[in-house]
Amino acid sequence: MIVDKLHDEVVSKGMVCVGLDIRMDYIPDFITKKYDSKSERIFAFNRLAIDAAREKAACFKLQIACYEAEGIEGMKAYAGTLDYLREKDLLSIADAKRGDISSTAGLYAKAHFSGEFEADFMTVNPYMGEDAISPYFDYVKNKNKGLFVLVKTSNPSAADFQEKILSNGNPLYIETAKKVGEWGAEFTGRSGYSSIGGVVGIKNTKEFHQVRKACPGMFFLVPGYGAQGGTGKDIREAISDPCAVVNSSRGIIAHAWNAASESDFMDAISGRVEKMGKDLSNE
Amino acid sequence: MIVDKLHDEVVSKGMVCVGLDIRMDYIPDFITKKYDSKSERIFAFNRLAIDAAREKAACFKLQIACYEAEGIEGMKAYAGTLDYLREKDLLSIADAKRGDISSTAGLYAKAHFSGEFEADFMTVNPYMGEDAISPYFDYVKNKNKGLFVLVKTSNPSAADFQEKILSNGNPLYIETAKKVGEWGAEFTGRSGYSSIGGVVGIKNTKEFHQVRKACPGMFFLVPGYGAQGGTGKDIREAISDPCAVVNSSRGIIAHAWNAASESDFMDAISGRVEKMGKDLSNE
Repeated sequence: MIVDKLHDEVVSKGMVCVGLDIRMDYIPDFITKKYDSKSERIFAFNRLAIDAAREKAACFKLQIACYEAEGIEGMKAYAGTLDYLREKDLLSIADAKRGDISSTAGLYAKAHFSGEFEADFMTVNPYMGEDAISPYFDYVKNKNKGLFVLVKTSNPSAADFQEKILSNGNPLYIETAKKVGEWGAEFTGRSGYSSIGGVVGIKNTKEFHQVRKACPGMFFLVPGYGAQGGTGKDIREAISDPCAVVNSSRGIIAHAWNAASESDFMDAISGRVEKMGKDLSNE
Repeated sequence: MIVDKLHDEVVSKGMVCVGLDIRMDYIPDFITKKYDSKSERIFAFNRLAIDAAREKAACFKLQIACYEAEGIEGMKAYAGTLDYLREKDLLSIADAKRGDISSTAGLYAKAHFSGEFEADFMTVNPYMGEDAISPYFDYVKNKNKGLFVLVKTSNPSAADFQEKILSNGNPLYIETAKKVGEWGAEFTGRSGYSSIGGVVGIKNTKEFHQVRKACPGMFFLVPGYGAQGGTGKDIREAISDPCAVVNSSRGIIAHAWNAASESDFMDAISGRVEKMGKDLSNE
């Protein structure tokens, strides 16, 4: 089960997930001058960031919107980055948040779990229910892939629907967590966690505890750290076991734009990753 | 407002939305033999299908999963098809069902409302609430774009979350419809409908009437016709005004795979579109 590999990475390297959410204005001049095409520039940025972070990061998450926004060139860099992560045996999360009817979900599974855009994990949206999620299960079982289902997101408007109280007294996100628990039960690995995990943003400790109660085998992908306001203390209060990866993108990759050389750039990235790792583990 | 243009198309041509949900095995040999690359083959298929359908179809919907599943070549064909629709002044819907935090939603808006992947409308997922939708509003207001928000989908598992009864007695999808009404109010066109519409699958008439009551200005994108089980009679019972487009993909484009020539192919497609149009209008 892929979740066990992710769990092992967290145990050995800590909970940092590096968000490779590229923007063209993050790219330093020394890279821009060296390459002619947008796809080469983005890929070069990502390759250096990966090399700088890999010893201290559990995994890498690519927000696909950043690549779609750059058109075909962006998608080429997306494919190239995933290929590089596979080559280096590093774990990747396609943050695509797809959700559609079963025949379409099958195509999204094919798109993001095989071929040029192949990743290890992908994020999915539960609004359409079980038959929008189950087409991925064959890949989880037979191709060593994993999912993170949106349970409770880190944005203010998460309250609009996810926090609505149902007639049984539970907020909607707890119903989602229970469903994730049902779906994931058969994909539980030796670590005790399931390859069908959940996205739960840093907001308050109580929510995490409620979600864990509703779905004890959930491995978490946690957004909301750093630029979005969450702190290491928040994480440490919410999570005691190595059952989560915590994503930061802007906090790690947006601060090396004025690096003058590869080594400057890599030092800036690895310094940010190390600092975040220490914050999460309270060293 | 783009909704007015769509409304005009429905008034003059009827409610058919042609779903260009390509699969490689739909492509006839005469196209495969003529072109070397996958992107050229897909584009040639779509171009002929568009030319065959345009006189009797209100708009064209591209399920982006079909293109993502074919990698970079698929995305090139996706871009080319949208470009062709723009060139012919035909309306396009990017069926992408994206949904993410505001900074990311802004990137998805850039990705799908400008540049190589520019469409007129796109579908979005409401699970993350208002701040995952509002970044598109600037494009609706200033770039003549429109949204279809998932309200009640056509798949069996829509019941898992969308039909959950809230503590106020409403099912979740009615809360979604109300929010769509609030978001869309300022984007109401001369037709009386809003450029922020909703996706409501054919299931039962009562649901349509409830949604219209919760959101009177909603223009509908209706999936579920044909291969998914919905009929013209279902539509006619649910909708009396020209306030919807009804999508069919497999029912229109999957049956011309053995066409021997361009004219055979186009006859097959236009025949299917005409038949569906008559079914919807009960001619």
